Amino acid sequence: MEKIKIVIAGPRGRMGKEAVKLVNETEHFQLIAVIDHKNDGMNLSDLEGFSGIVAPIYSNLEECFNQNQADVLIDLTTPEVGMYHARTALNYGIRPVVGTTGFTKEDLQELNNLCEEKGLGCIIAPNFAIGAILMMKFSQMAAKYFQDVEIIELHHDQKLDAPSGTAVKTVQMISEVRDSKQQGHPQEKETIQGARGANIEGMHVHSVRLPGLIAHQQVMFGADGQTLTIRHDSYNRASFMSGVKVAVESVMKLNLFVYGLENILE
Amino acid sequence: MEKIKIVIAGPRGRMGKEAVKLVNETEHFQLIAVIDHKNDGMNLSDLEGFSGIVAPIYSNLEECFNQNQADVLIDLTTPEVGMYHARTALNYGIRPVVGTTGFTKEDLQELNNLCEEKGLGCIIAPNFAIGAILMMKFSQMAAKYFQDVEIIELHHDQKLDAPSGTAVKTVQMISEVRDSKQQGHPQEKETIQGARGANIEGMHVHSVRLPGLIAHQQVMFGADGQTLTIRHDSYNRASFMSGVKVAVESVMKLNLFVYGLENILE
Amino acid sequence: MEKIKIVIAGPRGRMGKEAVKLVNETEHFQLIAVIDHKNDGMNLSDLEGFSGIVAPIYSNLEECFNQNQADVLIDLTTPEVGMYHARTALNYGIRPVVGTTGFTKEDLQELNNLCEEKGLGCIIAPNFAIGAILMMKFSQMAAKYFQDVEIIELHHDQKLDAPSGTAVKTVQMISEVRDSKQQGHPQEKETIQGARGANIEGMHVHSVRLPGLIAHQQVMFGADGQTLTIRHDSYNRASFMSGVKVAVESVMKLNLFVYGLENILE
Amino acid sequence: MEKIKIVIAGPRGRMGKEAVKLVNETEHFQLIAVIDHKNDGMNLSDLEGFSGIVAPIYSNLEECFNQNQADVLIDLTTPEVGMYHARTALNYGIRPVVGTTGFTKEDLQELNNLCEEKGLGCIIAPNFAIGAILMMKFSQMAAKYFQDVEIIELHHDQKLDAPSGTAVKTVQMISEVRDSKQQGHPQEKETIQGARGANIEGMHVHSVRLPGLIAHQQVMFGADGQTLTIRHDSYNRASFMSGVKVAVESVMKLNLFVYGLENILE
Repeated sequence: MEKIKIVIAGPRGRMGKEAVKLVNETEHFQLIAVIDHKNDGMNLSDLEGFSGIVAPIYSNLEECFNQNQADVLIDLTTPEVGMYHARTALNYGIRPVVGTTGFTKEDLQELNNLCEEKGLGCIIAPNFAIGAILMMKFSQMAAKYFQDVEIIELHHDQKLDAPSGTAVKTVQMISEVRDSKQQGHPQEKETIQGARGANIEGMHVHSVRLPGLIAHQQVMFGADGQTLTIRHDSYNRASFMSGVKVAVESVMKLNLFVYGLENILE
Repeated sequence: MEKIKIVIAGPRGRMGKEAVKLVNETEHFQLIAVIDHKNDGMNLSDLEGFSGIVAPIYSNLEECFNQNQADVLIDLTTPEVGMYHARTALNYGIRPVVGTTGFTKEDLQELNNLCEEKGLGCIIAPNFAIGAILMMKFSQMAAKYFQDVEIIELHHDQKLDAPSGTAVKTVQMISEVRDSKQQGHPQEKETIQGARGANIEGMHVHSVRLPGLIAHQQVMFGADGQTLTIRHDSYNRASFMSGVKVAVESVMKLNLFVYGLENILE
Repeated sequence: MEKIKIVIAGPRGRMGKEAVKLVNETEHFQLIAVIDHKNDGMNLSDLEGFSGIVAPIYSNLEECFNQNQADVLIDLTTPEVGMYHARTALNYGIRPVVGTTGFTKEDLQELNNLCEEKGLGCIIAPNFAIGAILMMKFSQMAAKYFQDVEIIELHHDQKLDAPSGTAVKTVQMISEVRDSKQQGHPQEKETIQGARGANIEGMHVHSVRLPGLIAHQQVMFGADGQTLTIRHDSYNRASFMSGVKVAVESVMKLNLFVYGLENILE
Repeated sequence: MEKIKIVIAGPRGRMGKEAVKLVNETEHFQLIAVIDHKNDGMNLSDLEGFSGIVAPIYSNLEECFNQNQADVLIDLTTPEVGMYHARTALNYGIRPVVGTTGFTKEDLQELNNLCEEKGLGCIIAPNFAIGAILMMKFSQMAAKYFQDVEIIELHHDQKLDAPSGTAVKTVQMISEVRDSKQQGHPQEKETIQGARGANIEGMHVHSVRLPGLIAHQQVMFGADGQTLTIRHDSYNRASFMSGVKVAVESVMKLNLFVYGLENILE
């Protein structure tokens, strides 16, 4: 099998570092260059933490694409440059896999049109954790058969907002297939306020915050005599990399625009 | 919506009792008769535990079908009569939903042909617990993305065999989509024999037996930095009834033969 | 070992039935009579559900004690008669194990004095589920070392009140050993109200209600890099019987009054 | 409150680094010096990863004790020097808290005598993870009331041995209070070998190994109608530090020798 030739934008960020490691360790991937707003002209192997990983550093994306024949651009930069990177890659015939957020509806429409015009694949993925995406997808599937569901999400106690974005996203995905239902006993009463959690379209969401915890979510379905539980535990950032891998492999076979990894998992 | 007219065979068995309750409580279901090798000519409402549930009792299936216009036969009897019941129902233009096991390949082929010939649906389901079936289905789906998986099944300590049939079935379903893989460290060593559980095609299965437990199974997938867990807890026989309900609703729309509830869940 | 001779008051109630079964099946226990406001003069073995369990039925407690030499009275009746039963037993030199609630402070003081005067043991236990009591006791012990704790209690969706009495009791027991602490990030914010659960002295309690569930509670402690979880699952009423057994065995060695099973578990 | 003056031996090791951080961040602790076989005469703040943490570095323990008035020595070095460090500290009137293993019976006896002679406390702790120690302690307590128990330990798939040392230690602690009991159904049968796990004195231990996992153990007790589960999740090395903190605080109040943190937790 021919190797997939990859350029990574944002190699020094936390996600970028993991992506460099992933590409370097995957046999059928090949890192041919990186895009970094600093260190132009140096080699990645010169930077701390990358010893032995050889790849020229470019600050200018077009210069990089002109000098290197790439298949895929993995973009793990910032919302400010993500759109520019994706558009430019497509114009150069290179398939983008983008992990940044902040795209507007107009951006997405433009990328969609560009993919169609060029006959190229492009994946924008706000969340690369395959386990989390499968959890949401399975929850949506289960909700067709189990109308009663509650979500417990558990995070470290430095997290500021509750409930988590993933919990809200899960509720939304379930809502798409489930009629709104007020769960629990109709006469149920909180003797202490908040006990029954946040109520979103009749689904209850509970946010646990404790030191030691990292990022966990449990979706529980109940019916007469049984419960079905789907749980994802994320222990560190490496959990995102299996999603990046799947995205790179998938984007090579796509000739259209995809938003959200859940749409390429079967 | 017109009600689905249902005959139940085996109403006094443990599953049968639950099925009577289910049909009686479901608005769009209507119990029109029951088949019982005893009590012919009496009414179900005369029997202990069924007060208020009116349905004529027949010992003779054909007599019942001749006198009552049924849509579906729910058969919860024994392997000995299940095949005769299914065949007879189809010949009367009635769709069977059968929960007994023990069908031979020839039986299944015959039913398949009969469904085709008559243009009718028929569902044979060795397991009606929708939660368990979804657990297996989701496990099969997840195995495409997570190659490392272990199964923990937990049952009361009166269970004789280990691992459970559901665990073995789950492993088989995963094997269909996963290349055989020897999991764990290549040099791993059991300092006490059995610690790593039963090894089936490289997957490890652990059987816990404790008083108090009922029937539970947990399928755990692991990858770099994350785990995905799918768990089913079965607390009592009522857990089978949501599956019976789905089967009855589905069989009305089918005009072919289906073996296994997993094949009608989307 | 000589058998402990036992009288059970309230044998036809749900707890009573289990207690009769327990005493009947425990080798060093002997059921010598039962107290029932109905069926005076009959034998327990005549009543439905007790075939083969021989014990005379008395409606009059004093008559029973006059005619039978008992060691222990297990009282599983109602708050109305529990106090009368306990007092009478002590006056006859019989040790009471009482599972009813509703005792006033004056009642408890009177029983305490009576125990001292007679040199007899007496146990009043609002909760006989040893697993639940150990969960609370261990939680209290752990709270000395882990200041951050959240409680998730899960019950069937027919339960009216949230949080559960056991959850509130657990919080109280932890509060006895822990300085009040506001957990979570000081700036944490609920984007949907209730997400962080009920806040009791800085501890957060989450109440999950789903069909299928029975009665479960999980106490989670967190600290840097670790969590400790103590969980109790109650599947049915039989879970109370191990507590009754321990109480009967313990009360024989006591010569004082004890309120709450947690005070006799080591 | 006067601060506890602490010397740390082995500050550059993985545990040592965490200990330096702990002492530095604990208000009533004061780091007065460190022992390092390298870097003699330098200051800790000069070394990479310790900027801002001022403490003189000594290679010679006696020189350090001669020049600094310490209360406690935290030793996180190697078995080779641990004994010498503990003995020397006691001779200087300084209380040792030692995290190394490999002490012989004679070593322990000598330290015991020395503590008695000097009227000083000394703690040797092979495991500082308080959560794990509480899990074992609670399991031992619960085993008095629940005779049926199984252990599931879960680790990353780079672990070589199964079952884990902690699982074996837990079984031993339970065995001290429990009569040997062959659990499970007397006629139970493994249809696939190993399914029921490792059998130690009738207790079954199951070892799960998956990428993504870190170090987890779950002790499950079962009885009629209920289960009690005690679980410890260790996510990273910081989990050991709460144990070091408790040990330092405790050793100041002790005037005897203690082996194992479980003996100072109440």
